[in-house]
This record gives sequence, C-alpha cells and structure tokens, in this order.
Amino acid sequence: MATVSAERQASIVSSLTVDVPSPYLLFLGDTTELPYAKTALGLRDWAPEKCVGEYALPGATVSTGLTRLTPAEAHARGARSLVIGVANRGGTLNPEWLPALIESLEVGLDVVSGMHARLADNRELDAAARRLGRRLIDVRRPPAGIPIASGRKRSGQRLLTVGTDCALGKKYTALVLAREFRRHGVDADFRASGQTGILIAGTGIPLDAVVSDFVAGAAELLSPDADDDHWDVVEGQGSLFHPSYAGVSLGLLHGTQPDVIVMCHEERRERTLGLEDFPLPSLEAAIDMNLRLVRRTNPRVRCAGVSLNTSGLDASQVRAVLAERQAQLGMPVADPLRSGPELEELVVSCLSPNPSRA
Amino acid sequence: MATVSAERQASIVSSLTVDVPSPYLLFLGDTTELPYAKTALGLRDWAPEKCVGEYALPGATVSTGLTRLTPAEAHARGARSLVIGVANRGGTLNPEWLPALIESLEVGLDVVSGMHARLADNRELDAAARRLGRRLIDVRRPPAGIPIASGRKRSGQRLLTVGTDCALGKKYTALVLAREFRRHGVDADFRASGQTGILIAGTGIPLDAVVSDFVAGAAELLSPDADDDHWDVVEGQGSLFHPSYAGVSLGLLHGTQPDVIVMCHEERRERTLGLEDFPLPSLEAAIDMNLRLVRRTNPRVRCAGVSLNTSGLDASQVRAVLAERQAQLGMPVADPLRSGPELEELVVSCLSPNPSRA
Repeated sequence: MATVSAERQASIVSSLTVDVPSPYLLFLGDTTELPYAKTALGLRDWAPEKCVGEYALPGATVSTGLTRLTPAEAHARGARSLVIGVANRGGTLNPEWLPALIESLEVGLDVVSGMHARLADNRELDAAARRLGRRLIDVRRPPAGIPIASGRKRSGQRLLTVGTDCALGKKYTALVLAREFRRHGVDADFRASGQTGILIAGTGIPLDAVVSDFVAGAAELLSPDADDDHWDVVEGQGSLFHPSYAGVSLGLLHGTQPDVIVMCHEERRERTLGLEDFPLPSLEAAIDMNLRLVRRTNPRVRCAGVSLNTSGLDASQVRAVLAERQAQLGMPVADPLRSGPELEELVVSCLSPNPSRA
Repeated sequence: MATVSAERQASIVSSLTVDVPSPYLLFLGDTTELPYAKTALGLRDWAPEKCVGEYALPGATVSTGLTRLTPAEAHARGARSLVIGVANRGGTLNPEWLPALIESLEVGLDVVSGMHARLADNRELDAAARRLGRRLIDVRRPPAGIPIASGRKRSGQRLLTVGTDCALGKKYTALVLAREFRRHGVDADFRASGQTGILIAGTGIPLDAVVSDFVAGAAELLSPDADDDHWDVVEGQGSLFHPSYAGVSLGLLHGTQPDVIVMCHEERRERTLGLEDFPLPSLEAAIDMNLRLVRRTNPRVRCAGVSLNTSGLDASQVRAVLAERQAQLGMPVADPLRSGPELEELVVSCLSPNPSRA
C-alpha cells in the first residue's frame, strides 16, 4: 500500500531485532575461499565477545584464527549456537554440512543460518531439531509487512557504503565509520542490510532476501526519520556493476536516499567475484554511476571518499597506494582497517556539511 | 548456486506455464483510475476470446466496455474464473472486495489474482474456497529454484521494452512488436514478466515477486538460449527512475542482456505515477541511462526507437506529435496502438542488424 501508519512502521521496525542465543561456535564448512567466510570473519572482528571458537570440516583452508573446537567442546565452554559462518553463491545448504549441524543440535546448540534456504526446509535437520527440542534460526528472513517505497524525504543524515563489487568491505567500512562518528561525538547508528551485519548489530533487514518490489521500501524502513544531527551509517549491498545483484544495490540506493556515499574497493581486485568475465569498473566510473542514480531520491548526495581494502598489500606499500589513489581521485582514500591519518581525513570529509546545506 | 544443470533449467522453464480455467469474468473492484485496471484492460485487448464480461462494485468509474455481468450470469455464459483485474499499489487484497469474491466462488467460479498477497492468506476467502471446492489461483508466484544470474551470454536475439514510468505501455509495446515481428516472418516470442502478461501468454515469471537476489537470474531464465535468428520480445517492468521499483528494472535489464531496447513513454505524462513529487526524466536521459546500464551485460545494445503512448491526445494531433518527437530524438517514434507508417519504421529499426554484427 502507498501509506503505512506511523504505529505500523514502528511495529515493523521493532520486529527487525533478532533473537539469537550467544555465544557462538562459528562453522566454516569446507570453505577454501576467504570471501565466502565473511560471516565468520565479521563476527570474529565485530562481536568477538560472542565467539568461543570455530569448527571446520576436513578440506577447509579458511580459518578465523579462533580456537578449533568440536560442538561438544564449544558447548562445554558456554556456546549456545552454531552459526553457519560461510555463504555459498545462491545461499543454499551444502548437504555435506548436515552431519556437523546435527551433531551440534545433539550436543545442545541451536543452529543459526544467514542463507537464503530455510534451515527447516531440510527435512533431516528439521526432524533432528524437533526431536532434540532445539531451534533452527534463519536471520535472512525479512519482516512481514514491508511497504512499497514512498520516496518521501526523511529527517536525519544518512551515509551509504557502496562498492565496485561484492565482499570487499562495505560492511566493515560502515561499522568503522559508525564507530569513528561516535568517537567524534556524533550520534550514529550502524544499519545492517545483510545477514552478517544483522548478527553483529542484533537488528536489521536482509535486503537481498526481500521480494524485489519491496527492496526500496525496506531500505526506507531501515533508516527511519531521525534527529537532524543523527547519522545512520547504512551497510551497502552488492554493486551496481554486478550482473547478478545490481538490482538489490539500486533499490537500497534509492530507498536510503543517502546524503553521503563512500565508495568501497579492493586494491588489485580486477574481476567480479565469481564472474571472472566481468572486469570491475574504474573507481571514477563507479562513483559517477552511483551519484547519478542516488540523485533521483537525494539530489544533494556527494561522495565523501573511498574505502580501499588493502588486505592484499604489504604494510610497507599501503601509505603510498593510498596517496596515489587520493591524488588520482581528488578525495580522501583510506583503508578503515589500517590506522593512520587517512581514516581521520575520510571521517572529517563524511561529516562535512553538504554544500547546499551549509 | 552458481550453476544449474540444463535439465534443471528446462524443468524450471516448463514450470512457468500457468493453469487458469477460462473464460474469465473480469473484476474491477471499485477502481476509479485507469492505470490501476491494467490487468482487466490487457486481457480485454490481448485475450478477448477468454473474456465474457466485467463485474464492478458501486463507485467504480473504470470500465473495459465489456458486458456487465453478475458472477451468476457470467457462469451461465460459460465463465470459469473471476480474474481480479485491478492492482493496488503494493498489491494487497481490498477487504471490500471480499463479498464479491465469495459470491463468485459460490456460483462456481475459481478466483484468480495477480496481487502480491496470496488469496489463501485471507482466512474467510480460504474457508469459502475449501467449503465450495473451488480454487484460489495466484499467478504472481515465481517458480521455485530460480538460480543466481550467471551473466553468461545466451544465443538468440532479445528486445526489452523499458520506460520512463510504470503503467504506460511496456507490455502492449512488447505484445505489438512480437506480433509485428511474426508478420515480418521473424520467429518471435512475447516473454511476460508481470501478472497480466502471464495471464495473456499463459507463461512467464512475475519479476517483481521474485526475491531480490534472484531477479537477474529470473530474467535469464525468462529468455533462454534460442536459435540465432529467434527474437524474444521481453516485457519490461517499472523504470530505472521510479523510486519504488527501479531495482526490479535494473535486475531485468541485466539479466535480459537485450540487443535492442525500445523506450516507452506516455505523451503529456510529466510526473511519476503515484509519486507526484518526482518529475519524469526526459526521453534522452532515460534512453542514455538504460543504455549505460545494459552495456554491462551486453555492450552491443542499441535503442531502436520510442513507443509513445498517445492515448491522451486527439487523433488529429498524433501524427504531428510523433513527427516532432522523431525529429527531437533522431530515431523512430510510434504509438503501437495506432496504425500508420511510424510503427513499420519502428519494427524495421528493431530488426536491423546491430552495427558490430552486420
């Protein structure tokens, strides 16, 4: 429907909170590619107090660096849930994981998933959970009753992280910026739009699981009206240039109506994750296209800078690469996971008033 | 998952066929705005042999021009289903329609909906259907098992109708072009991406009801590999400029990988349907943005011309307006619902080989 009452909106927003028993044992499956383990790595980095260890199958080459524990050992150390910390393309349950998941239920852990597929849709798993009285928790379930986007301008300030590709730092950038904004005395909330962010923040909407007609409406719900000096720092999704997911990115762009975007990129990544035939756009082209499309719902948007993932570089190279990119683009460029003056420059740029508003 | 077997794809494609008992009685509810009655009007125009009449509530000012019949009268004339021929923004069931729907079930009609809300989610309606042994048929249900888009280039030719807004002629344009292509001896299929198109064609995928991560994948399924000289003429959805629905449009653009786009616009419409604060883009800007974004998955795309809905103009003005627009844009401009040489020019332009392919 075109309009949703304020009470109805408030009730939907409050339903965004997720209830997941912690602490967690992080399950890595048999993963060999780091980007697919981003849920496990995100929880290790941003909710370490909730993570007691990791559990991987033979063949896995990815590790969080946390203690390797069996489900029974983790339970003995206080774990209450096994969180599936890896994602497949398409978000389905790998049948080879089933014995490990059932073992976890048997020792007393709930099982938590951020996949598209519902855990309970697997009959064997569902039967085991019922028999053992344990919960199967899917955090990639959008709330009911999301409205069609209204396009109405909301009060408060919004920042959205956008990217040249998937899985290169949009969530981390948003988490760091929200933290840095608060260090600057600014009232700021991290707004999670994906399963890992939701597990970290305890609230949010998994945008890519929303029925497509309602994505922009979900993005509007995710960063509701706020005080004029409040910032919502919204986690971006996918990329306008990703042939599989660009529609999600555009709905999130339009619905968020960001005042500021920060472009996220991984230095040296040249090809789209999982679709090697598609070269990544230049940073200039990516910034230009994002601004063009955001202007439809917020004509005053600006790009405050670039978040550059330099995890593939030697520490000794990083400063020079950041300086080179900054000279190339004429805006602050920082790796939010490396300390240094660049991050402070990026934060100051984000918080500078937009020209037409000064 | 990244890859889906050929057999699995074939099985999903065959599941796109819908089974709706015909002929239909078209239900108009209490609608007063013509664009919201597009399902009823589409069926009247494109499947007249399946329509026995219309049924409207007091207060409705919209009519299809078909005979007004009660459900009992329609059943006596052979009708087998009541098709809800109107859409609300958000696609929900209006509670005031309920007595009419139950009356239809009681006289022996099935009830067919293209709304987002499932008919059976209404308890009263569900109970009535069960009691009477009648079917509630939701055609806005995507098939199960849609894959994530692969971006792989498919064989065959594709045309996609795009637009400056919703509900201004993308479906009609695709239907007319597919018909005209066949008149030219070209092997062509209309590919339905929305509920009305699906009821007309008897097959298709309701793109706006697909979970957002899978929209481009659904678009890939909708126009599968084909002979090199075969054309799929794909019905567009929404608009890249519509603040509520642009994500659906972009997913469809990317997944279709069109060789040709045709831009659809309604002459004299200046504001976005339902969102009057948002002026429509110029035709030039709309064409430019669509081409920029399509090039990501098909660099050879071109815009073959414009489909101009002139339904608001006097017949005497139409030729002059079409000529003026054609001079402005430097490409064929036709109203596909008005006969004349302009349509033939547009069709010839669509079927001309792309430069890099000639």
